[in-house]
Amino acid sequence: MSDLLFKRVALIGLGLEGSSLAWVMKRDGLAGHIAGSARTRATLDKAMELGFVDSVHENVADAVAGADLVMLCTPVSTFADIAARIAPALKAGAIVSDVGSVKLAVIRDVGPLLPTGVHFVPGHPVAGTEHSGPESGFAELFEHRYCILTPPPGTDADAVERVAELWRRAGSRVEFMDAHHHDRVLAITSHLPHLIAYTIVGTAADLESQLRREAASNGDVVETSEVIKYSAGGFRDFTRIAGSDPVMWRDVFLNNRDAVLEMLGRFVEDLTALQRAIRWGEGETLEDLFRRTREVRRGVVEMGQAGRFIATEAEDGEDPDV
Amino acid sequence: MSDLLFKRVALIGLGLEGSSLAWVMKRDGLAGHIAGSARTRATLDKAMELGFVDSVHENVADAVAGADLVMLCTPVSTFADIAARIAPALKAGAIVSDVGSVKLAVIRDVGPLLPTGVHFVPGHPVAGTEHSGPESGFAELFEHRYCILTPPPGTDADAVERVAELWRRAGSRVEFMDAHHHDRVLAITSHLPHLIAYTIVGTAADLESQLRREAASNGDVVETSEVIKYSAGGFRDFTRIAGSDPVMWRDVFLNNRDAVLEMLGRFVEDLTALQRAIRWGEGETLEDLFRRTREVRRGVVEMGQAGRFIATEAEDGEDPDV
Repeated sequence: MSDLLFKRVALIGLGLEGSSLAWVMKRDGLAGHIAGSARTRATLDKAMELGFVDSVHENVADAVAGADLVMLCTPVSTFADIAARIAPALKAGAIVSDVGSVKLAVIRDVGPLLPTGVHFVPGHPVAGTEHSGPESGFAELFEHRYCILTPPPGTDADAVERVAELWRRAGSRVEFMDAHHHDRVLAITSHLPHLIAYTIVGTAADLESQLRREAASNGDVVETSEVIKYSAGGFRDFTRIAGSDPVMWRDVFLNNRDAVLEMLGRFVEDLTALQRAIRWGEGETLEDLFRRTREVRRGVVEMGQAGRFIATEAEDGEDPDV
Repeated sequence: MSDLLFKRVALIGLGLEGSSLAWVMKRDGLAGHIAGSARTRATLDKAMELGFVDSVHENVADAVAGADLVMLCTPVSTFADIAARIAPALKAGAIVSDVGSVKLAVIRDVGPLLPTGVHFVPGHPVAGTEHSGPESGFAELFEHRYCILTPPPGTDADAVERVAELWRRAGSRVEFMDAHHHDRVLAITSHLPHLIAYTIVGTAADLESQLRREAASNGDVVETSEVIKYSAGGFRDFTRIAGSDPVMWRDVFLNNRDAVLEMLGRFVEDLTALQRAIRWGEGETLEDLFRRTREVRRGVVEMGQAGRFIATEAEDGEDPDV
């Protein structure tokens, strides 16, 4: 078992991230024993049935007893409560880490609750899908994706390295970053895109309802949703993002408020400028921006972060539209 | 040649849409002769080399001479000029159609210029990719996608049916719609999503430049773009849309101004409400919306408009992130 990184791992939360990480550890023999804990009995049973954990525990304190690594994989609003409950049960020298999408709030909520001698290594694998639950995990989720670690100054270097090694084994590229910087960068690359996608899908659904009510009051037949029918025009890409886990994302926005509001302010300024350009017919302003953003897209493609697909059916280009 | 729909077809514009439609007609033997016209000699040469046209013409009037169907596949801002130039060369009974993403403006610009006895059947295949140019076309582009026809009242029924049949042969589901309604529905499902994607990619690029300048002035090493590195967090989906053809999209916004500004107004109202919810920590407002938008996503998936992919490499889930 030369691949063994941790004798005993406790996974708190067995959704997409937790189950995917478990599959990585199972595949490569990185953990001697994986103990899982989750909020519902159904999730615990499903995890045992799927076989990505070795034991399941309703009580988080039972799950972490004797663990060398405790990984928090629940929505970040639950972290403070979980930290308080596991603190007395953590063994000396244990490492506590997490996969939360915000980092300053996690350090604020979890750090002070952990006993001396326990190492806290906050982390964020920048990878995921719009699916959730214990069935949604797969070992390849993290491959070629970045995992950002934000250990506070003074964190035990050996503990940091062991967590980094786990993510490298998962196929991720590990980066280190200050938590404040992380929260700002992710606010623009992840949190704001999600907020905007949620908003426009809601706006479209409301418009649809309104149009249907109007049509019905005119006695017209109201058939299938037009918003959904014509979603290949660009909208469907937003619906995919807006299908992401509601609780996890609620927590992201509530726990990265300042950075999200800052990015939102910048975005609305830029949108207002474009609105004005459209109103006054300033085609050059529009075209200049669109040429510039095309270059950004080229950068994403060149860096291998674009996603490369083969359509399983020829009709499904991966693409937005005309 | 029982599949023949048109003895002679003229394609004006040989980019993604024009070349894809040509490939459909070649594959199924729908046209006796396909004449192509494009702005540059390079495009004409490439089209002949690829073999999806039978003849190429620098002069649009030469291309449409004797054609039973003339399909306009250029950016909509060029339509009025093209219509004026082809009008004298059109044969009696010819059908003129188009693939423009806006329809009221096209009817306004093209309709009055066409001679009596020529049938005008405006259309919009809701399908595309972010790629452009004569090499980007493929016959399957339109399969299982909707094609919306917006013939003005009184349009010759036989001409409409012949255009509809062409799109059905391309694998599209043909729908008929009033041009005004088309422009509003597409404003929310396609034009606003593109505008938002262009905006946020620009916002992110500007932030990136600012951060780099700050880092450089502190003497820090400025390495690869962080916005691009961490784009798997959701941003990359926006970059794909924001990589779409700049001229085509400039024209869409300038030519569907009223509907786009209306949808933008609705969107900004909703975004402002969410901004307020984040500022005041109103988690329930956020979660309620996020649950509702998840249902819309389910609708898109159930209706087969989601896009179905196999990742060619395991790391590239098609998906946004955490």
